[in-house]
Amino acid sequence: MKMQTRIPNAVIKRMPGYRRYLKELQEKGVDKISSGEFSRLLGRTASQIRQDFNNFGGFGQQGYGYNVEALHHEITVILGLDKAHKMVVVGAGNLGQAIINYTHFYKSGFVVSGIFERNPKLIGIKINDIPISDYEELEGFVREQQIDIGIICTPVDSAQNVADRLIAAGIKGIWNFAPIDLVVPESVALENMHISDSLHALAYHINKAK
Amino acid sequence: MKMQTRIPNAVIKRMPGYRRYLKELQEKGVDKISSGEFSRLLGRTASQIRQDFNNFGGFGQQGYGYNVEALHHEITVILGLDKAHKMVVVGAGNLGQAIINYTHFYKSGFVVSGIFERNPKLIGIKINDIPISDYEELEGFVREQQIDIGIICTPVDSAQNVADRLIAAGIKGIWNFAPIDLVVPESVALENMHISDSLHALAYHINKAK
Repeated sequence: MKMQTRIPNAVIKRMPGYRRYLKELQEKGVDKISSGEFSRLLGRTASQIRQDFNNFGGFGQQGYGYNVEALHHEITVILGLDKAHKMVVVGAGNLGQAIINYTHFYKSGFVVSGIFERNPKLIGIKINDIPISDYEELEGFVREQQIDIGIICTPVDSAQNVADRLIAAGIKGIWNFAPIDLVVPESVALENMHISDSLHALAYHINKAK
Repeated sequence: MKMQTRIPNAVIKRMPGYRRYLKELQEKGVDKISSGEFSRLLGRTASQIRQDFNNFGGFGQQGYGYNVEALHHEITVILGLDKAHKMVVVGAGNLGQAIINYTHFYKSGFVVSGIFERNPKLIGIKINDIPISDYEELEGFVREQQIDIGIICTPVDSAQNVADRLIAAGIKGIWNFAPIDLVVPESVALENMHISDSLHALAYHINKAK
């Protein structure tokens, strides 16, 4: 498949959504879908969807639409979801525990291999059979186990330090839940889940409507 | 304050981040900050920040920069964070419980008033002193208690139905954690937290870098 050198991040962010819809169609037993139907379902024009797909060389045939299973598979491969990813969670408080339970529940090729925490009261306790380890062992573990993703669930004031240590240990991507904008080198992928920012944006829209 | 009729959503989404930085500065005892320093801190140009603020009539004085406390307060009021918001959580599984604990922990004017669930085994159990109620009582509760925000933590296949019932009961905003794009009328605010989409976008960037 011919790839463009740099695909806009906004396009990347839409791909998981396309994939979700395709999975739902698959589960409903739909084999193929016209570009018109698919665009109605997604609330985007057929041309917008085609433009997104053209970034990856384009999918679908003129006059046929999309083969649901094949397109789901293509996007799965593009996103790298056909591979397993090893993750560590740093910070085993409320949020960290929730994320561990959440990813455990989804079991979609993302495996939490280790949990790290500074609070001595939590060290040794198991969450989904994974024991919580001492934060000081983080770098060694990431290096040895060749961990792909570090999930940061610490308070704001230690988040950048955690990121720096993960990066030094060779992490490939950081999934950041701490409400802070981390600084990471170009070579490390970063996705933020700023949960409270989302709630605050919602508050704006509610209060504006009054 | 002079308001433009329609402020781009991208601008709204940046305001909570600005507010976070201002709060951090406040906690460090910083009273005022030059627009140059503020822009370095945020990784955006001073002109981009000024443009964002101009949507709300503009803040700060030429040649002085920003008064940290005043600007934090202005953004707090704009976002409606000076008011209390009443919320219900629908779906008390792993994710719902995590969100309840998370919002409880942050205590920032967002109060979970009720929790609703279809699973009879969970009904009656308390989370942070709030008993889990029968899903059938949702609309009555939302109307009576004048709930502002409905948090959807149900599986995908019931999420739209939950949204419809919340909307019929007069909800003002929906915070959606189910991995589905909900259809809501213009008058209802919607914020999505598509957690797995974020993880999948991260996977793309990691695999691309290999």
